[in-house]
Amino acid sequence: MRPNALIAQWQDGKSATNCWLTLGDPSVAEIMAHQGWDSLTVDMQHGQADFAAMRAMLTAISTTKAVPLVRVPWNEPGTIMRALDAGAYGVICPNVDTREQCEQVVGACRYAPQGYRSVGTSTMRAVLYAGSDYISHANATVLAIVQIESAKALNNLADIAGVPGLDMLFVGASDLSLSLGREVRADSSDPIVVEAIDAILAAAKKAKLRTATFCHSVDYARAMMAKGFDLVTVTSDQGLIASGSSLSAQFADRSE
Amino acid sequence: MRPNALIAQWQDGKSATNCWLTLGDPSVAEIMAHQGWDSLTVDMQHGQADFAAMRAMLTAISTTKAVPLVRVPWNEPGTIMRALDAGAYGVICPNVDTREQCEQVVGACRYAPQGYRSVGTSTMRAVLYAGSDYISHANATVLAIVQIESAKALNNLADIAGVPGLDMLFVGASDLSLSLGREVRADSSDPIVVEAIDAILAAAKKAKLRTATFCHSVDYARAMMAKGFDLVTVTSDQGLIASGSSLSAQFADRSE
Amino acid sequence: MRPNALIAQWQDGKSATNCWLTLGDPSVAEIMAHQGWDSLTVDMQHGQADFAAMRAMLTAISTTKAVPLVRVPWNEPGTIMRALDAGAYGVICPNVDTREQCEQVVGACRYAPQGYRSVGTSTMRAVLYAGSDYISHANATVLAIVQIESAKALNNLADIAGVPGLDMLFVGASDLSLSLGREVRADSSDPIVVEAIDAILAAAKKAKLRTATFCHSVDYARAMMAKGFDLVTVTSDQGLIASGSSLSAQFADRSE
Amino acid sequence: MRPNALIAQWQDGKSATNCWLTLGDPSVAEIMAHQGWDSLTVDMQHGQADFAAMRAMLTAISTTKAVPLVRVPWNEPGTIMRALDAGAYGVICPNVDTREQCEQVVGACRYAPQGYRSVGTSTMRAVLYAGSDYISHANATVLAIVQIESAKALNNLADIAGVPGLDMLFVGASDLSLSLGREVRADSSDPIVVEAIDAILAAAKKAKLRTATFCHSVDYARAMMAKGFDLVTVTSDQGLIASGSSLSAQFADRSE
Amino acid sequence: MRPNALIAQWQDGKSATNCWLTLGDPSVAEIMAHQGWDSLTVDMQHGQADFAAMRAMLTAISTTKAVPLVRVPWNEPGTIMRALDAGAYGVICPNVDTREQCEQVVGACRYAPQGYRSVGTSTMRAVLYAGSDYISHANATVLAIVQIESAKALNNLADIAGVPGLDMLFVGASDLSLSLGREVRADSSDPIVVEAIDAILAAAKKAKLRTATFCHSVDYARAMMAKGFDLVTVTSDQGLIASGSSLSAQFADRSE
Amino acid sequence: MRPNALIAQWQDGKSATNCWLTLGDPSVAEIMAHQGWDSLTVDMQHGQADFAAMRAMLTAISTTKAVPLVRVPWNEPGTIMRALDAGAYGVICPNVDTREQCEQVVGACRYAPQGYRSVGTSTMRAVLYAGSDYISHANATVLAIVQIESAKALNNLADIAGVPGLDMLFVGASDLSLSLGREVRADSSDPIVVEAIDAILAAAKKAKLRTATFCHSVDYARAMMAKGFDLVTVTSDQGLIASGSSLSAQFADRSE
Repeated sequence: MRPNALIAQWQDGKSATNCWLTLGDPSVAEIMAHQGWDSLTVDMQHGQADFAAMRAMLTAISTTKAVPLVRVPWNEPGTIMRALDAGAYGVICPNVDTREQCEQVVGACRYAPQGYRSVGTSTMRAVLYAGSDYISHANATVLAIVQIESAKALNNLADIAGVPGLDMLFVGASDLSLSLGREVRADSSDPIVVEAIDAILAAAKKAKLRTATFCHSVDYARAMMAKGFDLVTVTSDQGLIASGSSLSAQFADRSE
Repeated sequence: MRPNALIAQWQDGKSATNCWLTLGDPSVAEIMAHQGWDSLTVDMQHGQADFAAMRAMLTAISTTKAVPLVRVPWNEPGTIMRALDAGAYGVICPNVDTREQCEQVVGACRYAPQGYRSVGTSTMRAVLYAGSDYISHANATVLAIVQIESAKALNNLADIAGVPGLDMLFVGASDLSLSLGREVRADSSDPIVVEAIDAILAAAKKAKLRTATFCHSVDYARAMMAKGFDLVTVTSDQGLIASGSSLSAQFADRSE
Repeated sequence: MRPNALIAQWQDGKSATNCWLTLGDPSVAEIMAHQGWDSLTVDMQHGQADFAAMRAMLTAISTTKAVPLVRVPWNEPGTIMRALDAGAYGVICPNVDTREQCEQVVGACRYAPQGYRSVGTSTMRAVLYAGSDYISHANATVLAIVQIESAKALNNLADIAGVPGLDMLFVGASDLSLSLGREVRADSSDPIVVEAIDAILAAAKKAKLRTATFCHSVDYARAMMAKGFDLVTVTSDQGLIASGSSLSAQFADRSE
Repeated sequence: MRPNALIAQWQDGKSATNCWLTLGDPSVAEIMAHQGWDSLTVDMQHGQADFAAMRAMLTAISTTKAVPLVRVPWNEPGTIMRALDAGAYGVICPNVDTREQCEQVVGACRYAPQGYRSVGTSTMRAVLYAGSDYISHANATVLAIVQIESAKALNNLADIAGVPGLDMLFVGASDLSLSLGREVRADSSDPIVVEAIDAILAAAKKAKLRTATFCHSVDYARAMMAKGFDLVTVTSDQGLIASGSSLSAQFADRSE
Repeated sequence: MRPNALIAQWQDGKSATNCWLTLGDPSVAEIMAHQGWDSLTVDMQHGQADFAAMRAMLTAISTTKAVPLVRVPWNEPGTIMRALDAGAYGVICPNVDTREQCEQVVGACRYAPQGYRSVGTSTMRAVLYAGSDYISHANATVLAIVQIESAKALNNLADIAGVPGLDMLFVGASDLSLSLGREVRADSSDPIVVEAIDAILAAAKKAKLRTATFCHSVDYARAMMAKGFDLVTVTSDQGLIASGSSLSAQFADRSE
Repeated sequence: MRPNALIAQWQDGKSATNCWLTLGDPSVAEIMAHQGWDSLTVDMQHGQADFAAMRAMLTAISTTKAVPLVRVPWNEPGTIMRALDAGAYGVICPNVDTREQCEQVVGACRYAPQGYRSVGTSTMRAVLYAGSDYISHANATVLAIVQIESAKALNNLADIAGVPGLDMLFVGASDLSLSLGREVRADSSDPIVVEAIDAILAAAKKAKLRTATFCHSVDYARAMMAKGFDLVTVTSDQGLIASGSSLSAQFADRSE
């Protein structure tokens, strides 16, 4: 089975870069896949990818070596399994607040006896991408990732982190801020938010889990890597268009 | 943030008209949006819109002032949040029978601390439609609407209506009739069904909620407005095609 | 090969009804196919069907006995052949002004030696719909139809009508009116336009061709049938929505 | 209402053939529908059909007499109801392990009072396919089918089989093997798996339910029919492409 | 009819900005439409928009005041007319080398007697966008634009510019450079290319036509406006993603 | 620029295998690309791929080393250029009967000064697939291929074969048979057809062009390779489904 390059990279002690794909556009996914990112995330929650787009985006990413991840819209086993069948090498589930919710995510990512992921046909896309021995090695290769993004999840951190088979905690700083009664800010330096993020990082390290977080600037991304995060999401396709356009829009204003 | 014109209209004491979009066709949505309806509902339950169609339909509706609503297929938080991210100014959830189910719907429509709606990126479509201050005002602007359409829901009426943050009860007369052991009839005058509808209306008024119902004729719609309903669904895109075609079909018959 | 029911109907001395599908929506096509029309036209010129939609609409129509016709956007052999491969039992080409243009249309509809239609694979959709002996009988079954809709075409009427293999002249009254310097009117009674239509009808009858025309009312359609037209297009999917909505819009106005 | 041909076939004592559609491609569905299968299954779990594809595939299948079934991705009432509204004559739900899960499936397939399926508009696709009396007869016509594919489900067999309104148990041998700690094998002859399959068959017969299973060879399919299975899935669209291509690939190898 | 804001802007002596949409993505089109560009061009030649995407993109642009233009893939009347029916307020045709080719473009953009554009149904999208009096005013409102981009076209400049009804010459500097035997360069300062551009500008001014050109930097765009160009294309959606990503890619490199 | 592996293979004296993709389905294209074919052809003429499907199929093929070819529906420069921009490494144009038609095809495949192919943006898909030096090397890398399939083309063989820049003659035996007044047969042994094929092969060899032909059996394909054909199309996706299904259909028949 094609190995998960992120796992090898982490074992070498290197953090990995990630770009978020929110447009749900396979052509954009293919362009992005050629830019040198270590991994790309197809976002089905706040992004526009539905199932058909997600699958086409995974194909587009497979023209390169970038590792494909999928964020599902909600903790729903059917969707998680379909993302994996389509060839995702990691699934990120939002809004996991309890151990039971985490077990549901991890179980959907693992074939029996470790979990309850359903065995698809031998011709599913994951087999094309990963190889014909996919079913034997998938449990050890695909990443089960949950987002920690609420006060409730903070209270249950050790319980969540202790779920066998879980690979990574992903900090959802915006929702976390709101849940803690703080303002939503890009790369927030609010001490209460920072403290929460540090707690997540510590809990993950204690449980020997990988960690990830969103960043809105290269400086913040570097700082987070220095802090010990294994994967940093640096920008998104939509973010690049928006920031690029606002520069051009300034030109447009001056032109009148 | 762009205000919700339905709220203003109701504050002025006016009922609002609504047309149901069941074809799942963005071109039809754009045509309908130019006909003068106060609001349009993209139906993802019995209609054919999936996520991609829904989003394109909301864009099409946004070329006009008609207020866009979405009926989701089921009480599933991921779908409710995606409809709101895509720019819906109200979400209608079918088959709400209990206070817990209602709380799940309303929570998915509200950012913390009122609910658990997840904060998307600053470039989600809702921000294009509503304005850059969307997150601050969304809780007070988007409508959380539940359908009351079973004997069980009737029994739990006060509990459901009492959920904080709920905006409207929508009468689902067909399912309600079946659940009460009565025949499904357009604009039913069955006394048992009428009594149930009156009970829903009364419970809503007592809890200071808005109310809505489906109508299959202009006369019935007028009667429902007179009765106190704040929003009446008068027809659907598919209904217009079906009724128009049956007239033409008669011509076709005569031509043979 | 499945016979073309329109040909049989005409041989029985009966005019045929037709409805125009402009929305490019396979679901609408399936609804319309169940209303009893003798034939349906997928409009790729002024309607919204592209190739993918056209093919899906032909499948939808094939769930019933309605005869499927396609209007192509322009006199382009590749498009005409693809419509036939997809199972159209007639192709309508707009804006045919000369004998050479007409020969190009008819040639694209006929396998050698009558024309230059390319032989597709034995698994094209037309074979599913029509039967495995499609290639042997297609030349005699599928209709080659050209629209006469300019002053120039009127001048070349006999030449156009004389092209071997042509089946039908379709009057394009709107373009014809404009080309003759008259206003575009639904079911026009402008004597210059009427005279032109009569000339087309006469030329067709002389050349033993079938004739068709658009109508915007049932009364006009009956009159055209009485005049000798073999196929009358009575309404369109978009027309039904528009007229139905305008009634509802009146209700909406009154409700304020 | 159009009767369910599978029910009639079973009443005549005949087993039925089934082909699995995993490509999610309406054109392939139409081709397959012309091959003489008794029934076809649109697979939304391990196959690639999403809602839009599923609906288009059901239309394509409706050009023939093949009975359309849909396997949903997960036990989610909204999806089950949408498949039925779109015209499925049977819904297969994967991973049903308990009586409660089975009741949720069956309830979603039945209008009140037998279940809680929501009544759609009178113009839903199912009415086009089945007839205008659909709502009155649907409960007795559409099949509610659950997959038995885990050790847990085996333990709950009698409970699951006893749910009123359930029509069929579908053996999921791959997942079942894995859950029993056995290797996944096509047409497995592993005695532990065979014993489990026999237990499912026996439980179904006792509860007067129909039974179905997947097969990967014609010989195995015949054996399963002889054993008493009412429906055998013989192959899939993707399987035919894969097996055919591997033959051609051998040629390709030799050509170098 | 909704006026063409570009015409008004030019009459006020102001140049207009333009952004090129090559991704063929309606969501990107909607984002871009909110950035303050005077106009947006849907590119069907080198961009990825096909008919369905183009139409959806025009709808998305119509949620704002940006003027929608379409570049067609080739000088083909059917495609030009479909773009206009879909609501384009200007059509750009590539590779126009002769007066006859130019006449074919302009004729396809004008209803009789000025041209041969076919009259669509009264419910085409252009009517929704522009108003019910579209057909009367379209000839004076929609822009007919041809690209001058070959040595041959340079030789025929006066002939091309003299075609009645033509509105604008659009410089295609890349193809022009290649055709003149020069290297393709962004914002080329090659004297032979510059001379050719100046000749096009002069010919346009002499014939009282508007002019446009592509720019790859804000500085060049300002220079072209100063030189007298009426419309400058400053960047593209794909360009913004590519340039933004290359910055991020540098970060990615450093992170390893 | 990524070299064209077919050219290298031919220079090594090896014939190449090809599979025809007629379903227009990107998932099928990805499956096929993993089977070991030297090249795959996306068929836009008799197959179902439109522009959007073609582009997605080229992306899917790019996950492997198979060389992607596209057959366009007709000799239309806009379509040929779009296929190349999307990353096709060869374009096959059907129905080329004269030197002028051949020159139009070849010119559309070559940048100036060899032809008139339009220079796209630096971010077109072909650059992602081929490399950033695409424009400099494309003329020597992408294959210009014309189909010889009529009596008229046979008469003009030397003229057609002599067009500078042409790479290959592709025998279209079905259309050729019909055009010569012979029956359409798979792998025809009709002496008149065989003689015509030999003439095409001879003319190609004389003009130092490559040759290709369709085959319907492995035996015929081997014979054609032995005869000197450089590329043989052995089967199609749809053919594999059809032949595989007919076997299964036999089982289905026996089961009743």
